[in-house]
Amino acid sequence: MEHELKIYNSLSRQKETFEPLHEGHVGMYVCGPTVYSDVHLGNCRTFVSFDVVYRYLMYLGYKVRYVRNITDVGHLEGDADADAEDKISKKARVEQLEPMELVQRHTRSFHHILGILNTLSPSIEPTATGHIVEQIQMVQEILDNGYAYIKNGSVYFNTPKFIKDHGVYGKLSGKRVEDLLSETRDDLKTRMKRTTLRFCHLDQSTDERHLMRWPSPWSVGFPAGTSNAHHEHQIPGQAVRHPRRRDGPAVPHHENEIAQNYGACGCMPVRYWMHGNMLLLNGRKMSKTPDPETGKSNSITPMELFSGENEIFSKPYSPMVVRFFMLQSHYRSTLDLTDDALLAAEKGFRRLMEANKVLQGLAYTGKGQQGALGEELEKLIGQVTEEMCDDFNTPKALAVLFDLVTKVNSLKDGRLPIGEVSEETFNRLKQTFHDFIYEIFGLKDEMEAGSEGNGITDGLMQLIIDIRQEARANKDWGTSDKIRDALKELDIVLKDSKEGTSWTKG
Amino acid sequence: MEHELKIYNSLSRQKETFEPLHEGHVGMYVCGPTVYSDVHLGNCRTFVSFDVVYRYLMYLGYKVRYVRNITDVGHLEGDADADAEDKISKKARVEQLEPMELVQRHTRSFHHILGILNTLSPSIEPTATGHIVEQIQMVQEILDNGYAYIKNGSVYFNTPKFIKDHGVYGKLSGKRVEDLLSETRDDLKTRMKRTTLRFCHLDQSTDERHLMRWPSPWSVGFPAGTSNAHHEHQIPGQAVRHPRRRDGPAVPHHENEIAQNYGACGCMPVRYWMHGNMLLLNGRKMSKTPDPETGKSNSITPMELFSGENEIFSKPYSPMVVRFFMLQSHYRSTLDLTDDALLAAEKGFRRLMEANKVLQGLAYTGKGQQGALGEELEKLIGQVTEEMCDDFNTPKALAVLFDLVTKVNSLKDGRLPIGEVSEETFNRLKQTFHDFIYEIFGLKDEMEAGSEGNGITDGLMQLIIDIRQEARANKDWGTSDKIRDALKELDIVLKDSKEGTSWTKG
Repeated sequence: MEHELKIYNSLSRQKETFEPLHEGHVGMYVCGPTVYSDVHLGNCRTFVSFDVVYRYLMYLGYKVRYVRNITDVGHLEGDADADAEDKISKKARVEQLEPMELVQRHTRSFHHILGILNTLSPSIEPTATGHIVEQIQMVQEILDNGYAYIKNGSVYFNTPKFIKDHGVYGKLSGKRVEDLLSETRDDLKTRMKRTTLRFCHLDQSTDERHLMRWPSPWSVGFPAGTSNAHHEHQIPGQAVRHPRRRDGPAVPHHENEIAQNYGACGCMPVRYWMHGNMLLLNGRKMSKTPDPETGKSNSITPMELFSGENEIFSKPYSPMVVRFFMLQSHYRSTLDLTDDALLAAEKGFRRLMEANKVLQGLAYTGKGQQGALGEELEKLIGQVTEEMCDDFNTPKALAVLFDLVTKVNSLKDGRLPIGEVSEETFNRLKQTFHDFIYEIFGLKDEMEAGSEGNGITDGLMQLIIDIRQEARANKDWGTSDKIRDALKELDIVLKDSKEGTSWTKG
Repeated sequence: MEHELKIYNSLSRQKETFEPLHEGHVGMYVCGPTVYSDVHLGNCRTFVSFDVVYRYLMYLGYKVRYVRNITDVGHLEGDADADAEDKISKKARVEQLEPMELVQRHTRSFHHILGILNTLSPSIEPTATGHIVEQIQMVQEILDNGYAYIKNGSVYFNTPKFIKDHGVYGKLSGKRVEDLLSETRDDLKTRMKRTTLRFCHLDQSTDERHLMRWPSPWSVGFPAGTSNAHHEHQIPGQAVRHPRRRDGPAVPHHENEIAQNYGACGCMPVRYWMHGNMLLLNGRKMSKTPDPETGKSNSITPMELFSGENEIFSKPYSPMVVRFFMLQSHYRSTLDLTDDALLAAEKGFRRLMEANKVLQGLAYTGKGQQGALGEELEKLIGQVTEEMCDDFNTPKALAVLFDLVTKVNSLKDGRLPIGEVSEETFNRLKQTFHDFIYEIFGLKDEMEAGSEGNGITDGLMQLIIDIRQEARANKDWGTSDKIRDALKELDIVLKDSKEGTSWTKG
């Protein structure tokens, strides 16, 4: 690859030069949702972040196999071990649905919302129920290696033995083995039971409420928290792992995936671990639990944000504005969703898209020579890529792109001399805007969202602009006022310039 | 239920009154696609047909659990037994993808195209790979019951023994047992191997090319043609089965599903078997194989039809026109896709939607009394439902709806006396149009397709209509001509009437 890509590896706690296992190929894995409820905005941020990673790796020329799982069984609810229940089973019972009906509903809505946010579909979307056989095989391997034991038909991971034998446990979270071992016996037991692999035996008393059940060598039961990493073994070129956003650096279920892989095959499942950071709402963690003082919960769904049907924000924010907003912060930083920040993002997004429209419409009128301005543009263009190669720094890349926006607007107005830009640089500028906006950042022109309506809207607007121009030429102020008022009603803004009149959705 | 629903049962070869197993509940199962290529138009017809069945059952008040599987392993290619290969494995190898990448790609495109056709998502979409454990269990049950045997690690269904023991085989296709048994030994062997359940053993020589492999009690291998009906056992109220369109009445793989279910549990998997009929293209079966004379293939994809990018039709046909076209024929009849038929469907579809727009905009101006006209309307309204209750006869229901369209247009023009219609009937008329167009037939207004553009388009059109009206009042023919020409370019037609000017996409 032409560019050197640096990735912050959570395992080593430093930026490392990315070196794929197999030249030109990357396997990336992102923890997908547990489909027992609709995806929330925090998840959306994670999936948008890693959508940009996916897009950028492809932009760099890698052939990427992007795997994002759907957890449709095995995500246990609550802390207590004895009563722990599968989240999907529980919710399905409450809603009087088959577990797989619930799964279908939320999988479809997950795809729908991620589609609205213009994320690309992953290469493979494995389900947990689709890998029962493999999970049982993996548990058996771990049992064979002595890192698990059977109790009442359930299989538990033997964490103390694993800690003693391997210096791996705790590496990701930064906890030292001695600290882990010095934790009270009870704590360790709880942690061990709570977070490590199991195959849970179902006894007769739980039969009726648990429709999801499979035979295993140990009992009839269901898998709980078994590593997804298994899939990765089948993926050549596997190199990057992108788990879901976590609240802090301690990621117990990823520690356990590492432990399970070591337990089964004695190897580290992946080389690069990436972790996104959390999304706040008005400075606080999102939570559906109502505040005792105000009685209001600090929570909003993606659709409430897009539609404006909420009491938190002053207006609706379109999916592309939200996506742009997310890119304005680095994936490893917390991001605070506020009205001011969204308003600013909306402005920024439209400024970027407008500048791109202007740029793509500009004809090259220079004479082919490269001057100081051309050199400056080349430098900025290179910088956009450099920032992205520095651990996918989208906010810095965007900042450089906005430096270029200023240049573009000045070029258009003639305040900067196109004579100082070679045609090659001019074309590279156009290409860079196009590639970064559409291909890498995955933004799209909002008026193009309704694909069918678009051509018609453009056509009608052209007609209206023509009529208005004629009316003004004829000093027919009645008609031009009527047009102004009607467009204002529709939130459409006209902009007059030397080149003619353009319009934007305001 | 208020209405008596009749369904043509392929098993009994007659219309039967539908009686659900569990009052108020229906389980329906539709054979979904094998996701090794994009869905073709014939499949689309089937899924649209059963989408209407699903919608109508819900309209009648049933709680419907609609299961439509995704076959992602086990669909063998070709007739020869020894070399038979899994379709997905083979295609994936050709395209140098993981089988599950191929599956993901075509599952997403399948959902996309069915979404464009406005079909509802089923309640559950089980995959074959998601039910390996269950398939192995079922094979074991059949083995235990003596209706299968093991050979070289593969399990085969024992068709001759099953035919001898049960009078069920051949019932669906109408073949007599004696005929089946009198077939030459070789034929029977081929049929048996080709079409019945197996768990195929993979030997070392095929190891490398077959990534999809699971351990079974008999060998490491993969399932082939195992019954999907297994899922149905878990569905309370299971009553209707809607397999994929077949070319004729002989449906070997459904015979085999019945046989497998009998073999495993001695019961018929479903009570009502429904089979759709095929879609022709210009009077001939669709086929990708080029005609030896013309060198052209008789085939078109859904997207080619919608976009107009094809050499077969004179223009693009929108998804809603295609859907309407499909409803104009009964699901058990063959349907011929021709330019003339599509042009007619387009006209019919727009006439229906336009009449609905008119009707929903009409205010009731009668005096509450019911007269002869009101009685006639009531009769027609009842008839729409009756036709649908007669084995989902969409063409006849549509015909009655078009009788009502004529009435609506006459009511609007004042050629029919609203004074003879009670307010209750008037409202029922509105409700019927709404329910049948949107809820049951699943049609939608095409201008509403681009959801975001819609409000804007309406607003801009209103502005343009106002300007045009004023221009005409001022005898400003220049402006009104300009508007006419621009709208013609955009394929928009204005219609002037007493009530004002309306517009349609032409």
